[in-house]
Amino acid sequence: MAPSAQTLPTSVSDEKYANVKWEELGFGFYRTDNMYVAKCKHGESFQEGSIVPYANFQISPCSAVLNYGQGLYEGLKAYRTEEGRIMLFRPDQNALRLKSGAHRLCMPYPSVDQFVSAVKQVVLANKKWIPPPGRGTLYIRPILFGSGPILGSLPVPEYTFTVFACPVGRFHQDNAGLNLKIEDKFRRAFPSGTGGVKSITNYSPVWITLAEAKAQGFSDVLFLDAATGKNVEELFASNVFIVKGNVVSTPEISGTILPGVTRKSIIELTRDFGYKVEERVVPVEDLLDAEEVFCTGTAAIVTTIASVTFKETK
Amino acid sequence: MAPSAQTLPTSVSDEKYANVKWEELGFGFYRTDNMYVAKCKHGESFQEGSIVPYANFQISPCSAVLNYGQGLYEGLKAYRTEEGRIMLFRPDQNALRLKSGAHRLCMPYPSVDQFVSAVKQVVLANKKWIPPPGRGTLYIRPILFGSGPILGSLPVPEYTFTVFACPVGRFHQDNAGLNLKIEDKFRRAFPSGTGGVKSITNYSPVWITLAEAKAQGFSDVLFLDAATGKNVEELFASNVFIVKGNVVSTPEISGTILPGVTRKSIIELTRDFGYKVEERVVPVEDLLDAEEVFCTGTAAIVTTIASVTFKETK
Ligand SMILES: Cc1ncc(COP(=O)(O)O)c(C=O)c1O
Ligand SMILES: Cc1ncc(COP(=O)(O)O)c(C=O)c1O
Repeated sequence: MAPSAQTLPTSVSDEKYANVKWEELGFGFYRTDNMYVAKCKHGESFQEGSIVPYANFQISPCSAVLNYGQGLYEGLKAYRTEEGRIMLFRPDQNALRLKSGAHRLCMPYPSVDQFVSAVKQVVLANKKWIPPPGRGTLYIRPILFGSGPILGSLPVPEYTFTVFACPVGRFHQDNAGLNLKIEDKFRRAFPSGTGGVKSITNYSPVWITLAEAKAQGFSDVLFLDAATGKNVEELFASNVFIVKGNVVSTPEISGTILPGVTRKSIIELTRDFGYKVEERVVPVEDLLDAEEVFCTGTAAIVTTIASVTFKETK
Repeated sequence: MAPSAQTLPTSVSDEKYANVKWEELGFGFYRTDNMYVAKCKHGESFQEGSIVPYANFQISPCSAVLNYGQGLYEGLKAYRTEEGRIMLFRPDQNALRLKSGAHRLCMPYPSVDQFVSAVKQVVLANKKWIPPPGRGTLYIRPILFGSGPILGSLPVPEYTFTVFACPVGRFHQDNAGLNLKIEDKFRRAFPSGTGGVKSITNYSPVWITLAEAKAQGFSDVLFLDAATGKNVEELFASNVFIVKGNVVSTPEISGTILPGVTRKSIIELTRDFGYKVEERVVPVEDLLDAEEVFCTGTAAIVTTIASVTFKETK
């Protein structure tokens, strides 16, 4: 049979990259080609799932996630190096965090190997959506949720683990650093709650204050602890660090803030750079008194805080 | 044309009732024939939806509800009277509660008329699933959620309002009254949170303690307030009342407990019966000291509490 492939009009860039205006890339939903889906029945464990074309799910109207909020998400990034390699940043850390969240929300979970393998498969199946070096990253979104119908009482008959990906640019648009509002009324998490895991239930409840802050011109909100309202916890989706002299401080992990993967790396890095790092209770005063403040997160990367506003005072 | 209908073997009960073993009915998911679906784009308002055959939804993997928990649910019941009429219990109250929840979670919402009309349409479209008088009720489950894809920042492009229904029997199986565990560690809600609305985010986070209590032989858990851990709030999905002499007391509505529709009616009824009703802070001591304790809810109806266990003491 005559080889006909070369008759197709394919340029190198068509093969390597999807048709995206990389320079205009923001941080939002962008449909890509493929996703990974695995399902698991109650009492069983997750088996290897498969890569399928990106499409809407079929989900029971009476599913645990739609009715009782049983869901977790993760977020990590793949990027291209100048040498053309594709890199992932510590995906096992996200797998472990998903596992601790699954315990908290009474769900089975994929093993670390399954998780990492699913992430890699999604990256490879959407390779042409990974932005060119320096132009952005492929944001990978694993989600785990109760997909089976449940009314009244446990158990949930079925769970779904899926991974999809979107090319993204910058998360925060403020080049000169973020202008934060210290949220004085709404709390994000409380002791014994789900603040320490990436439960979907932590996010929409605080959209109301994020939306208000954005309408007032702020970049993001900084939450205080629910127990006393005196100590700094974290931003909407990133951890916070303060610098004073040779000491870098960040709120300790005590169940109400998310143990960020970026946070952990920054702690290690700043220690290596010779700073003293303190994970401790951080009163608002210490923040206002700091020489430098920055936030860390997969989406937010490491971003400087330009200003902080607390009860009308900037 | 010859009328052929009478040649079909149809008994009266086949027409009037679905093929359900009513006496075995518990409280769980039961697939019925039809559901109601309405959608609404960001910036628009809900238009009249339609009755469709009960089926799984198509939902974006990147939807607001799956990733950030943006969802509310409601629960109400239709029942048959001995005279063969079909009754709904104050559906406008559920519509109003959905509305306040929608404000809290930044969603558009159906009007009270749309809500009530949707509920009625679902009841009529599933009429044969309404149990015979005294054998149970048709539990109606409206849900409202962010169905459009969102990554990072608002707005959510699309919302879905849907209503389905399941025939149900008793919610609690304990005929002699409930055995409650006063939950000493996990809190359900906190000030500024979503405890005052029927957000899906309030439920799966406390399954962990409900499951533990059930495994220990309890019927349900009674939550204490997050701020002090000293006052009684409510059960997993019902409100609590205590009786002492001529006084009936129940925790006041202050943002952390759900304003139950049954609660409201019971307050009105007990007042009519000549009791003094106090909506106030109810310390655990007052509960342990009460002559009678009961809980109220659409699912739970009005159920006596037989025992209360607090820190190992029954
Ligand atoms: C609430 C919250 N805090 C912190 C972070 C930062 O964590 P990571 O560095 O793992 O992205 C995130 C997000 O990802 C988050 O949602
Ligand atoms: C947390 C909670 N409290 C109380 C209730 C009782 O409310 P209603 O009487 O409207 O059913 C419910 C449930 O429906 C509930 O979920």
